[in-house]
Amino acid sequence: MTTITPSSLKSAVTPLASGRIFNFSAGPGCLPEEVLKQVQADCFNIAGSGIGILEHSHRGKVFDKVLAEAFEDFRAISNLPKNYQVLFLTGGATTQNYMVPLNLKSYSETADYVTTGYWAEKALEHAKVYGTVTEAATSKDKNHSYIPSDAQIKHSPKAAYLHYCSNNTIFGTEWHELDAAGNNTWRHRVPTAPAGVPIVCDMSSDIYARPIDFTKFAMVYAGAQKNLGAAGTTLVVIRDDMLEKKPTDKDGSAREIPWLLQYRTFAKDESRPNTPPVFAIYICGQVFKWIRKQAEGGRSCLDVIGERNIRKAGLVYSVLDSSKFYKGHAHPTARSLMNLTFKCPTPELDDKFCKESTAAGLDGMKGHRSTGGMRASVYNAMPEAGCKALADFMREFERKNG
Amino acid sequence: MTTITPSSLKSAVTPLASGRIFNFSAGPGCLPEEVLKQVQADCFNIAGSGIGILEHSHRGKVFDKVLAEAFEDFRAISNLPKNYQVLFLTGGATTQNYMVPLNLKSYSETADYVTTGYWAEKALEHAKVYGTVTEAATSKDKNHSYIPSDAQIKHSPKAAYLHYCSNNTIFGTEWHELDAAGNNTWRHRVPTAPAGVPIVCDMSSDIYARPIDFTKFAMVYAGAQKNLGAAGTTLVVIRDDMLEKKPTDKDGSAREIPWLLQYRTFAKDESRPNTPPVFAIYICGQVFKWIRKQAEGGRSCLDVIGERNIRKAGLVYSVLDSSKFYKGHAHPTARSLMNLTFKCPTPELDDKFCKESTAAGLDGMKGHRSTGGMRASVYNAMPEAGCKALADFMREFERKNG
Repeated sequence: MTTITPSSLKSAVTPLASGRIFNFSAGPGCLPEEVLKQVQADCFNIAGSGIGILEHSHRGKVFDKVLAEAFEDFRAISNLPKNYQVLFLTGGATTQNYMVPLNLKSYSETADYVTTGYWAEKALEHAKVYGTVTEAATSKDKNHSYIPSDAQIKHSPKAAYLHYCSNNTIFGTEWHELDAAGNNTWRHRVPTAPAGVPIVCDMSSDIYARPIDFTKFAMVYAGAQKNLGAAGTTLVVIRDDMLEKKPTDKDGSAREIPWLLQYRTFAKDESRPNTPPVFAIYICGQVFKWIRKQAEGGRSCLDVIGERNIRKAGLVYSVLDSSKFYKGHAHPTARSLMNLTFKCPTPELDDKFCKESTAAGLDGMKGHRSTGGMRASVYNAMPEAGCKALADFMREFERKNG
Repeated sequence: MTTITPSSLKSAVTPLASGRIFNFSAGPGCLPEEVLKQVQADCFNIAGSGIGILEHSHRGKVFDKVLAEAFEDFRAISNLPKNYQVLFLTGGATTQNYMVPLNLKSYSETADYVTTGYWAEKALEHAKVYGTVTEAATSKDKNHSYIPSDAQIKHSPKAAYLHYCSNNTIFGTEWHELDAAGNNTWRHRVPTAPAGVPIVCDMSSDIYARPIDFTKFAMVYAGAQKNLGAAGTTLVVIRDDMLEKKPTDKDGSAREIPWLLQYRTFAKDESRPNTPPVFAIYICGQVFKWIRKQAEGGRSCLDVIGERNIRKAGLVYSVLDSSKFYKGHAHPTARSLMNLTFKCPTPELDDKFCKESTAAGLDGMKGHRSTGGMRASVYNAMPEAGCKALADFMREFERKNG
């Protein structure tokens, strides 16, 4: 998909022939170039309608088709069962921090939160508006460099739900199943919960990075701007029974929830009870089609993407593992496939790394202030060539500065 | 901006040389073609950054500039005073139906609503989640074909605010000042309110359609997809003192408002406390630049646009006024500059009109079920040529069917 012009090689890395660079931003992240080219055409005149996608009525036939295909493609990617609904909401994933407890938990109930990073902590904090919540486990003691084991999660009796965040963008950790020997299988680990406790997952930064079984969840949400599209919509996958919850308020009365803050409003009206974010949904639809196209050789699209992501992250992690110069932030069993965090031996070298990598066409590598160092975000749309270029740059940088 | 190829003339109307058609959709509405061409370039690679606007970090330098310019241009268009803040929110204008009472009204207080159309009625209905609200006036008795006079508005003692909707998209009415003789001046009429009662206006479908003095308002909100950009962000203009309101709840305690539902959160953090709808804000910024460019001959951009809109709507209203075939829905003193509603003598002829106008490249004319007939939405980006083409088509249709 991306081609490299040898004549344009600068130091160890390769700006793209298209004039674009490798974008390692943590989100909004990069999109496939073939999607961007389709967007360019459709912005002006989509499907020969004489009207661009930005200007079509959200009740018109063109958007009807865009929306229907987006739902259909999303469901096909993960074989989503019929008793799960797909919703396109707004306000970013952070809006789910209050919509989840508002809709799923009475004031008198508690809910369990596993806090493995910045956003998981925010989710806990913001839920307090609607009563008690419980931190069932946290990785704060080691600056969120690991994921707690099931044994470390202390479940509340009768929790309204268990909430966790499957990939921690800032710290570069992700929930993985380990095999009997304790090795990483890279498969999505869902924490155990007592029977009947719904599991809610913030999957913003690793949804569709690998195969996923939604039937293990009562609800999953994800901001679109990493693996699903662009900023402007939040995808929610919710099981039908969650739509029927009737939480009570502080005084025990039925909670009055504004119409547009109820999940069921969006489920009933195909995510358009009022004007939806038409363009953001359209972009998701284009990305879903791109995801489906990745299927090859009898393997499903998510199998192919998952294997590719393991290879991509592996290019960089193998540099860390063979280096005395770089130090990774995440414990190896918790290493993220999407956000690769590491440091040089000194903050001065980190600064130099960021400056030189940017100059070489590897953009957006500066780590979050919570971890320092570098963070390379390699979402689905990042081509393998980008990870290869980064690994080459890292080796060269170590050689010169080690 | 739009050119017409004589050779492509079909019946009375003219598809555009660009392959685009005239889009009379009520919203999302049409955008200026020069904006769309900029979008096409910036989607792939904005400002030579090697990264498209959809993929830039909302904390990066490129978006910093996009956002700063959007704020600056919006303020410049209307000379917005410093004690007003501009916010880019999400969830559509309908989300303001609950955010307004949630933030600006205690449960024990009432607020006055003037219901002049579908969305104004929805605003009243949705506000009830947060206690009493009062319908201070309504135009329901005549199917919302007029705007109540100040004398018809019955103000509550100590209302928390007065809410109205300045343009009623479905019914095609708009608030205008009348001169002493009762003639329409086309200037924005703000209803009178008792001293100290904040005025809140839903200006979704006519913001920046003509000059506007924001100092008459405590708060104005507008979905972007008509005159400001594309679906995906809602613009809020709010006076500083409204940000400091501390409403109380049903039990008299301070109301706990989720962090992302407080206006002050967005005011403090330049509308990006979390990932904002980057692209939707970018589009607004492009449209604001287009609006500013309309200034000419020493006249401000809004003066020029306002005069153009009066001419544009006048082309169609003059057909209604000289016809015994067509009947307008709105009372002449309440006719909208943005949404022009009218009927043929029979529903069958309405259907024929819609079918033939669509075939002739005049799209999106079918009226809402509440009014029947036709609705031509002629937002700022609709060129005069579009209104001329519509007026010509109407005359020809009347000649053939009258």
